[in-house]
Amino acid sequence: MSDYTKGAAYIDGSYMPLSEAKIPVTHWGYRRSDVTYDVVGVWDGAFFRLDDHLARFRASMERMRMVPKESDDEIRAIVHRTVALSGLTRSYVAMDCLRAAPPPGAPRQPSQAPSYIMVMAMPWAWVAPPEVQERGVRLMIPTVRRIPATSVDPRGKNFHWGDLTAGQFEAEEAGADFAVLLDHDGNVTEGAGFNVFCVTDGRVATPARGTLEGVTQKSVMELCEEMGLPLEVRDISAEEFREADEIFLSTTAGGIMPASRIDGRMLGNDSPGPVSLALKARFWEKRAEGWHATPVDYAAAEASAAA
Amino acid sequence: MSDYTKGAAYIDGSYMPLSEAKIPVTHWGYRRSDVTYDVVGVWDGAFFRLDDHLARFRASMERMRMVPKESDDEIRAIVHRTVALSGLTRSYVAMDCLRAAPPPGAPRQPSQAPSYIMVMAMPWAWVAPPEVQERGVRLMIPTVRRIPATSVDPRGKNFHWGDLTAGQFEAEEAGADFAVLLDHDGNVTEGAGFNVFCVTDGRVATPARGTLEGVTQKSVMELCEEMGLPLEVRDISAEEFREADEIFLSTTAGGIMPASRIDGRMLGNDSPGPVSLALKARFWEKRAEGWHATPVDYAAAEASAAA
Repeated sequence: MSDYTKGAAYIDGSYMPLSEAKIPVTHWGYRRSDVTYDVVGVWDGAFFRLDDHLARFRASMERMRMVPKESDDEIRAIVHRTVALSGLTRSYVAMDCLRAAPPPGAPRQPSQAPSYIMVMAMPWAWVAPPEVQERGVRLMIPTVRRIPATSVDPRGKNFHWGDLTAGQFEAEEAGADFAVLLDHDGNVTEGAGFNVFCVTDGRVATPARGTLEGVTQKSVMELCEEMGLPLEVRDISAEEFREADEIFLSTTAGGIMPASRIDGRMLGNDSPGPVSLALKARFWEKRAEGWHATPVDYAAAEASAAA
Repeated sequence: MSDYTKGAAYIDGSYMPLSEAKIPVTHWGYRRSDVTYDVVGVWDGAFFRLDDHLARFRASMERMRMVPKESDDEIRAIVHRTVALSGLTRSYVAMDCLRAAPPPGAPRQPSQAPSYIMVMAMPWAWVAPPEVQERGVRLMIPTVRRIPATSVDPRGKNFHWGDLTAGQFEAEEAGADFAVLLDHDGNVTEGAGFNVFCVTDGRVATPARGTLEGVTQKSVMELCEEMGLPLEVRDISAEEFREADEIFLSTTAGGIMPASRIDGRMLGNDSPGPVSLALKARFWEKRAEGWHATPVDYAAAEASAAA
């Protein structure tokens, strides 16, 4: 038996330990970053909003004109089996759809290249370590600007992270945990795998455009409604963002992460603010109650082994 | 013995047939497109401008703050050995430097992730088939705009091709061979792996910014000087480009490729123009004479097999 304890993967019809999951260097998924993906979390044996992630994944594939052979129902079954094979009860689960390569006679025709699915389940890893989340994440606004939607549509979740990675280098140099990038109009967009919110005078705001339509971001919007917090989806300038009472991030692999600093300025008492903390507490409370939860079908591992 | 006839590769210390060259799905080189690369051509047993490509590759790595273990001399030797193992006398040779993954404790810190080198030599494939080059490539200007340098620096050769691939889809729909993207100011930049030139009233022009500093582009500039053709490196508007007397592309895997149409408008007699053809002829004439050529050290294959 292979060792699946450090993670499991599926690539175009085959299951394998994560350590064996590799992409040919000639495939456009690597060589042109011609790939879209989604990430769903498994917490205490259950997926969070699995159907939302599957729907967004399909929408991303359609934006990128990718048609893998698997249907949504098949992808759902593959995701269950992959997590089941890993045996993980807390897992970061990625599903990618990538283009292979077109035939030699059509070297620049993406329509001639088939697409295929990769799914991987790995042990849960926080975007920020728990102690950093506790003290509040430290943010900064880098000089690099987010790739505009007129070049690459951020609603199709993609690996064009050159700007986000350059921003993370700037953040490291500034002693911050995360960079939050501006668009070319000077409005706040997003960071390396997370959406952002700010709170001013009790009103919660999140950017209206230039970002991924985050599933955890959507969950925050639902929580705001439930908790009676006014929510605004609109442009947020760098100035407003820097002067906000509170800031927090939302992401699958972190939930709601309050900030304690922005560009060196302390927010509140250099610690997470009350609205952020209330939303975070309610988020995990509801998660424990089974909010949007789909239990992993761990029996699927047997079906897979037999297949 | 493994079969190297379809190509050979080197990954971080090991040589292998190209079909076995793969990247772990967890590495940022794939997962964040955190990779830079260069491509050098081998024609009739000799590299073209190998040192120029090695120097640009190192400059790209430095821009992306990547420090692989190999020196430039070692990369040069690896490139020779990889081609020698393939036995190919006409080959497309790519060298990549990609980041692996940071340790679990630093999930968003690129500085904590090591970088490594991949080199591959595959059979030569034209960017456009010979018969298409003969009739002249058909170009179009798509709606998608080139990723701006303020987001991702195009001088660090990268796989952020989402815009170029979307442009190629638009080109296919329009019945064109290649898309040439504009920047957000409406000036011409580049296309999927090539630089562009236009000729108006005998004056040759190429974009001043927002593009890769192409090695074949540089060769064209040298030819212009030798042939006494006035050359201008400056902004070129979409309007000027569409109204040019001639247009041609430059790329490692195509040399100089004259165009015969732009956005449906025929250039000249729907065929390559005289200045473009003269440059192309002189380019291949000089190549045959050994211009900037470095013979492949095919004996290096033995050294590698013995190692």
